[in-house]
Amino acid sequence: MAGILYGVGVGPGDPELLTIKAVNTLKAADVVVAPKAKDTGESTALSVVRPYLPSHTDIVKMVFPMVKGKETLAGAWSENSREILGYLQEGKKVAFITLGDPMLYSTYGYVLKNLRDCGHEIVTIPGITSYAAIAAMTGITLAEGDEALTIVPAVTDEKNLERILETADNLVILKAYRNYQQIVERLKESGHMRDAVMVSRCGLPEERICHELESIGEEGIDYLSTIIAKKR
Amino acid sequence: MAGILYGVGVGPGDPELLTIKAVNTLKAADVVVAPKAKDTGESTALSVVRPYLPSHTDIVKMVFPMVKGKETLAGAWSENSREILGYLQEGKKVAFITLGDPMLYSTYGYVLKNLRDCGHEIVTIPGITSYAAIAAMTGITLAEGDEALTIVPAVTDEKNLERILETADNLVILKAYRNYQQIVERLKESGHMRDAVMVSRCGLPEERICHELESIGEEGIDYLSTIIAKKR
Repeated sequence: MAGILYGVGVGPGDPELLTIKAVNTLKAADVVVAPKAKDTGESTALSVVRPYLPSHTDIVKMVFPMVKGKETLAGAWSENSREILGYLQEGKKVAFITLGDPMLYSTYGYVLKNLRDCGHEIVTIPGITSYAAIAAMTGITLAEGDEALTIVPAVTDEKNLERILETADNLVILKAYRNYQQIVERLKESGHMRDAVMVSRCGLPEERICHELESIGEEGIDYLSTIIAKKR
Repeated sequence: MAGILYGVGVGPGDPELLTIKAVNTLKAADVVVAPKAKDTGESTALSVVRPYLPSHTDIVKMVFPMVKGKETLAGAWSENSREILGYLQEGKKVAFITLGDPMLYSTYGYVLKNLRDCGHEIVTIPGITSYAAIAAMTGITLAEGDEALTIVPAVTDEKNLERILETADNLVILKAYRNYQQIVERLKESGHMRDAVMVSRCGLPEERICHELESIGEEGIDYLSTIIAKKR
């Protein structure tokens, strides 16, 4: 049997927010590849899919370091891609799991680029994003009518963020942990604080919801934090 | 028993792209409300969930006209909301289904506003968007690293679209049917034609994928058409 690579979006954290297709794929996979940021610590994506994995599934944790030095990243990524290719060449069904959606700010995008032309079939399964889950939970719509929605990671450079804030109707800021207070200042200046909400680890046991963005100190922000803000 | 309203995102069209939570909710619902744009014709969202509905489920089709005259819209919406409230007052579990995600450009957003304070519990279940499914299918990532992603409906006014095109790294244009050729012209001018793709009725039997945006005449465009375009 020819090996197949599945990129599986596992959603924001609630195991019930996986799609039927994702669950069926995970149940049939020979190998589940779980990315994590550090050697120590668990893979959050893995904890989400655990209830669905049969006992015979091989679980392979791969470290995808989240540092800014491009060479370290490229090295880790291509090494990980080679390991995945090895499983595919053994004819295995490999499911690469990723929190949220695999085509939006995911390490899977890089694995896909490395393996796109490897000769094995690749199937990508979309996932529920954190911001869609937060909008559903809080009742704050993401966009209506002819409004636009802009999604931006907090790591974007300040000029880019300012340019976006000048014009955005509806805004989602992902991974708002590194420069949280600076972002809140900018949101205040640009009039985006109405209906603003910050949610950390949405759908996970440690979930935190905050409608008073200014009440949070930088030290209290988790890596998986998302802000929804609207200009009215 | 107290009535509960569920806003259920049913995803882009493939019944396997519903979440576990959506399927469980639909199976347990007393009433499924299926919005459609016209008196005649079917509800696309209903055709997607049919496989999951037990035979005893009450199916109620509601017309949400998509005309620009705000009064007609407001009238239809509040009448529909009153009908839904009636079912809730009878103690029924009502599932309002919506293609894609209920918090993003959906009539559910308006129903939610009308019924938010009606005293009945409301639970919203996020859904996979058309653009996430298209990205997964075509292998075109939506955004990477520190890039932004802007989502905009084609009905937005031209000035707004131009402003967005000036700066957007990655662009999703939804419902690109009314002014398709004008949009393609603008994308050419702003340098967004690399990696561009247009997909109609993603995941549905009539799905159409087109990487040559200029080869399509306006007459050939379905209402459920999405463009992904990137600036490089």
